[in-house]
Amino acid sequence: MHRFFIPKECLEQDRATISGESAHQISYVLRLKPCDRIIVLDNSGWEFEVEIERLTKKQVLGKVISKKHGKGKPAVKITLYQALLKADKFELVLQKGVELGLTAIVPFISERCVTKKPSGNKVERWQKIIQEAAEQSGRSILPRLHPVASFSEARQSTKQSSLLLWEEEKGKGLKQILQSPSFRSATTINLFVGPEGGFTASEVELAKKDGIATASLGHHILRAETAGLAAINAILYEKGEMG
Amino acid sequence: MHRFFIPKECLEQDRATISGESAHQISYVLRLKPCDRIIVLDNSGWEFEVEIERLTKKQVLGKVISKKHGKGKPAVKITLYQALLKADKFELVLQKGVELGLTAIVPFISERCVTKKPSGNKVERWQKIIQEAAEQSGRSILPRLHPVASFSEARQSTKQSSLLLWEEEKGKGLKQILQSPSFRSATTINLFVGPEGGFTASEVELAKKDGIATASLGHHILRAETAGLAAINAILYEKGEMG
Repeated sequence: MHRFFIPKECLEQDRATISGESAHQISYVLRLKPCDRIIVLDNSGWEFEVEIERLTKKQVLGKVISKKHGKGKPAVKITLYQALLKADKFELVLQKGVELGLTAIVPFISERCVTKKPSGNKVERWQKIIQEAAEQSGRSILPRLHPVASFSEARQSTKQSSLLLWEEEKGKGLKQILQSPSFRSATTINLFVGPEGGFTASEVELAKKDGIATASLGHHILRAETAGLAAINAILYEKGEMG
Repeated sequence: MHRFFIPKECLEQDRATISGESAHQISYVLRLKPCDRIIVLDNSGWEFEVEIERLTKKQVLGKVISKKHGKGKPAVKITLYQALLKADKFELVLQKGVELGLTAIVPFISERCVTKKPSGNKVERWQKIIQEAAEQSGRSILPRLHPVASFSEARQSTKQSSLLLWEEEKGKGLKQILQSPSFRSATTINLFVGPEGGFTASEVELAKKDGIATASLGHHILRAETAGLAAINAILYEKGEMG
């Protein structure tokens, strides 16, 4: 069944009133009809099965048939601190990261970022990509997109179990860190990933001073957008979330 | 240093003669000059450092300065048997799969494939994507692209340590299979991934009869193009290849 996140206030008692993009998608793109059923999510963790009663291109009215606890909440909460990348790369990270199981995303700006500020309606577009990926992958809680931060703000917003991918790290690999005592028991992990040109040595030093562990991905040379996704996947696998 | 795969015959004694796309890339796109150095790869596992002597848009002549064994050969050889996907999805799998560390790719056609035959110069384009991803990620052996096969041919070409991702598998998850005795000692793994609509139940039965293990990716609902990449990454992580 198709899934749609809608604002909380659009669900009242056993009635759902869907407008905007989702209504367009339901009536025009998917061409659903009265009596068809959809899953509606209000970001509370519940899933509502809704039977469509009336619909136009702009509004869909339906009745809640049943509700149940949603699945797809990962046992480990990963916040991805991702330096801004070129538009299409950043969007790929958002889409695939949410699909894999991210809990939150903090975009940040570091020294070697080519993109220094998201332009125009970019944040709105990111939000839409996150929502679509969450709907498609069966999540019942929308991963949170934080405002764009500086690297310093990003570092200071983390407490523990933070790691930064650094291709020049010679000591510890990702697996070694994830299997170390402090990360093995961690239920939230903050993952820092740099821009296309990587972090500068002084940025890495600052991170280390803030207690952020640095990890390599072995001898693999991965693009910036692949590195983060590979690490998210590895964390989920390590934590028993990949089956 | 920029890396280029070139045909073996373009390296003779200590001379390199580069033509075609790579020559265009070197002289026109990257605007390299005489005395600049590049890495040339002849798919033998060796890396040759070459100093450019003369160049036009069509041909680059250079001298081999040194050679060394290439790195980036993974300890586990993964052959990805990937059902044909929509063009951009399939290309993403090729690019990211090679970047992560695939050894070979066998495209195949299964019941629910929307794309039944690669059109026109598609295979050539795939080859180019593989080459670029291999150059970019520091590989010294080009992952092999096999001809498009039927599902039956694909199954019959594997011997052991084969697994098929199946979202309806309730018994075994990927981690459980990778940590089972036969996969733990495996140095080559064949990974079967279905098309957008997944495998049919009868295809899964046929695979099981051929001794192919079926694995789920937990409760995650991943797109076809993400599932294969997530599994490749998990295999490499499990085998200690991700640092």
